[in-house]
Amino acid sequence: MKRTAFFISDGTGITAEALGQSLLAQFEKIEFERITLPYTDSLEKARSVVERINRAAEVDGCKPIIFDTIVNSEIRVEIRKSTGYMIDIFGTFLEPLEQELGSKSTYTVGKSHSIASKASYDRRIEAINFALDNDDGARTRHYSDAEIILVGVSRSGKTPTCIYLALQYGIKAANFPITEDEILDQRLPEALRTHREKLFGLTIDPERLAVIRNERKPNSRYCSIQQCNYEVEEVQLMYKRERIPFLNSTDYSVEEISTRILMMTGIERKVR
Amino acid sequence: MKRTAFFISDGTGITAEALGQSLLAQFEKIEFERITLPYTDSLEKARSVVERINRAAEVDGCKPIIFDTIVNSEIRVEIRKSTGYMIDIFGTFLEPLEQELGSKSTYTVGKSHSIASKASYDRRIEAINFALDNDDGARTRHYSDAEIILVGVSRSGKTPTCIYLALQYGIKAANFPITEDEILDQRLPEALRTHREKLFGLTIDPERLAVIRNERKPNSRYCSIQQCNYEVEEVQLMYKRERIPFLNSTDYSVEEISTRILMMTGIERKVR
Repeated sequence: MKRTAFFISDGTGITAEALGQSLLAQFEKIEFERITLPYTDSLEKARSVVERINRAAEVDGCKPIIFDTIVNSEIRVEIRKSTGYMIDIFGTFLEPLEQELGSKSTYTVGKSHSIASKASYDRRIEAINFALDNDDGARTRHYSDAEIILVGVSRSGKTPTCIYLALQYGIKAANFPITEDEILDQRLPEALRTHREKLFGLTIDPERLAVIRNERKPNSRYCSIQQCNYEVEEVQLMYKRERIPFLNSTDYSVEEISTRILMMTGIERKVR
Repeated sequence: MKRTAFFISDGTGITAEALGQSLLAQFEKIEFERITLPYTDSLEKARSVVERINRAAEVDGCKPIIFDTIVNSEIRVEIRKSTGYMIDIFGTFLEPLEQELGSKSTYTVGKSHSIASKASYDRRIEAINFALDNDDGARTRHYSDAEIILVGVSRSGKTPTCIYLALQYGIKAANFPITEDEILDQRLPEALRTHREKLFGLTIDPERLAVIRNERKPNSRYCSIQQCNYEVEEVQLMYKRERIPFLNSTDYSVEEISTRILMMTGIERKVR
């Protein structure tokens, strides 16, 4: 049986989506059609959302599940007129929180993913530019500005992780690929030696690495399982020899790799 | 008065943070110290978290606020022994959802920001690589693979938006800068002409643009308000002349720009 799930917000809808997805993930047997309706910020839009929910209810023959993070209570009341089953985040938690905090809610829309301050916005953009400028060992002269330098063999997940750290947390992350030349040298690459305390290693299962590399350069030596085995083994020896903390990225999403790195290194997020 | 807020999860903590931040943003008068404790996935870790909460309660002289998205109910029960005030997301919504859906929760940890499937993981990584390879007009020969091509003057927010669209939604986004040469030509740049339906314009207030550019190249013609005025005015004329949909990015975060683009264009997210 298919059911429709709506993520509704007067802002981006990112929080409603994240929360709704976590909850729906607990019901693996049910197939959900997921619809995000951001910027539902007027009664008029709310009414058309209600129509859409009611239509889905008719088509599915059962109540759609609604996850909403609408701050404005008038709009929330309007949505509640639909035939959907509402998981009403603000409606549920705001009043008890007001009581506990002894303070009134300001009912401000869409705070969590808006520009909280120009300063933190600038910091994120600066960090993104830093990640792009210092990707893949392209430049090493800015490493003194880096908060972390990810190292690892080609295609072990360095670039997406750097970008996520920048975008989500405003952290300046560079990355440096460990190639066969570096491995043969049996020493830490020169550019990294003076930044030892900033290094963090990524590793990956050789089988998975071979699959990923094969998509990039099919049937090459580069993607052979022998080569992947060799590089991964050597790079892990390097991490141990040089006492570089490291993480196996194979089964982790970019979010998991990034949050685990923060936890392991204690690096503080620069923006919230 | 300072209060401590904890975001606690057995996964990344990203959902707990997002939800907690939206709720706390409603109480502007209170200063919160925010602490994220991800991967709280054992009773032992839960006990040390409880100690930490209790210490904060003593120091602050009031109950810390706890936002938790812990799936495992034993761990949740353990956390509840603390002196904190709990906003217990799963505890609040999971049981009513089970009733409504007529299905039992599988109590699976950390689903929302983990690798849901290798396919969607690969899709995100592919999209990120696409964004990097097709950034800033570097290459235009892959534009037939792009789902969207952002255009705009230098520093109007194209690159971070492309990266966010890739990372969050697996959308292949290229971007092409509109320079003075393109403007003087009074025609759509050649590389873009055959991809007209994929174009989306960004614009920005000239005053803000001048500030951003001044950080990049201080005291240059490039960052002068005259130049910024001229480029922005001309590029907006181009959008109108060529019927390119566009958005003013000045007051928006990367998340807001991205979600608004999805809404305006109807482009579907490739991953959830």
